Amino acid sequence: MDVRALVFDVFGTVVDWRSGVAREVGRLLGDEVDAGAFADAWRGRYVPSMDRVRRGELPWTSLDALHRASLDELLVDAGVARTPEPVREELVLAWHRLDGWPDAVEGLTELKRHHVVASLSNGNVALLVNMAKHAGLPWDTVLSAELFGHYKPDAEVYDGAARLLGLPPEQVLMVAAHTDDLAAARARGLRTAYVHRPLERGPDAPPPPATAPEADLTVGSLTELAHHLSS
Amino acid sequence: MDVRALVFDVFGTVVDWRSGVAREVGRLLGDEVDAGAFADAWRGRYVPSMDRVRRGELPWTSLDALHRASLDELLVDAGVARTPEPVREELVLAWHRLDGWPDAVEGLTELKRHHVVASLSNGNVALLVNMAKHAGLPWDTVLSAELFGHYKPDAEVYDGAARLLGLPPEQVLMVAAHTDDLAAARARGLRTAYVHRPLERGPDAPPPPATAPEADLTVGSLTELAHHLSS
Repeated sequence: MDVRALVFDVFGTVVDWRSGVAREVGRLLGDEVDAGAFADAWRGRYVPSMDRVRRGELPWTSLDALHRASLDELLVDAGVARTPEPVREELVLAWHRLDGWPDAVEGLTELKRHHVVASLSNGNVALLVNMAKHAGLPWDTVLSAELFGHYKPDAEVYDGAARLLGLPPEQVLMVAAHTDDLAAARARGLRTAYVHRPLERGPDAPPPPATAPEADLTVGSLTELAHHLSS
Repeated sequence: MDVRALVFDVFGTVVDWRSGVAREVGRLLGDEVDAGAFADAWRGRYVPSMDRVRRGELPWTSLDALHRASLDELLVDAGVARTPEPVREELVLAWHRLDGWPDAVEGLTELKRHHVVASLSNGNVALLVNMAKHAGLPWDTVLSAELFGHYKPDAEVYDGAARLLGLPPEQVLMVAAHTDDLAAARARGLRTAYVHRPLERGPDAPPPPATAPEADLTVGSLTELAHHLSS
């Protein structure tokens, strides 16, 4: 593979959203709420909320704003509808303060030596910039669905990433823990690497597939990916 | 000043375009051409070429493509119209391979500890990403006129930067060695810092003003800027 740039899905692939969101939910809502279940329910609204934008039922709406709308509904469902406004704003910022998986910073740092490394996430630019500061993710640049006015898996996101990086799609490697993201990238000509993240949805959820045969590579960590690409 | 993010003009403010372009012109065109004069002439076509886009005479055209069109004209003027295609492509990449001013990496690294630091340049994203790799510029993210489909000093660029960073404009500091860039940023509500770069146009050109009284700050280097903002 003649790969010049790597673009990364972020939630679940690079950072552990479930632990991070549950930690902030526990801190801000206390014992009244099951923090892990709340994080799962919030994430459960992620794809449906973006699909409303993708189908044109909503104008372009940032992920922060979609997270906020989902949160307001979930607080009612969880019986804490009186949660005050400043706490709601802090809760939305939980998604800006996620920690990387243990291999993330070392893997990206190693990959950055010989490749351009960029996010390619549905998170908005401010979210991704804040997260990179929090978690120490050494992106060469942040690429976001927000720059294209389309959410993944719309083709515009993958096409737009290659265009902005000035590369033909076959020189761009999409890295993700989700096979649907990789399939959409592959359909636009990008190369693909699957990262197996068995704990993304917590220890009690069914694990994702151990390998993705359609991908160019399957790895268990970003450090393993760096090893593959340098050998 | 309650500044959360700093956005930087790049050519002349962070990197020394004249020395870098002249070096590559010398390497690729040899003694037939006065490298410094060629660099000056190339830069001289910068604003007029972008103004054609700004006035709508050209559709959106990346800076790489504008540089290439100017280059093709200048090679004729310089009597080297037979310069082959691969050399022309390499010459355009001279603008991707510029070195930072001596204080750039240290200053940005220091500023990054407490602020978001991003480019806000008329260079296209690929140019800015490649330049950051070459010169070691530790941007949190690359912001470019290309993301907004408008060149500075159009308002859309300054408005767009604050929007993508999720900040009110008064929490964003525009840093530039050019007073027209700062004036346009100020008109959109950004704070401004002027960097005095007496050698931008070479040792024989008239120097720029030593201070910019309209700016919130005037400094002589990015390390001095970091000192100001941390004190």
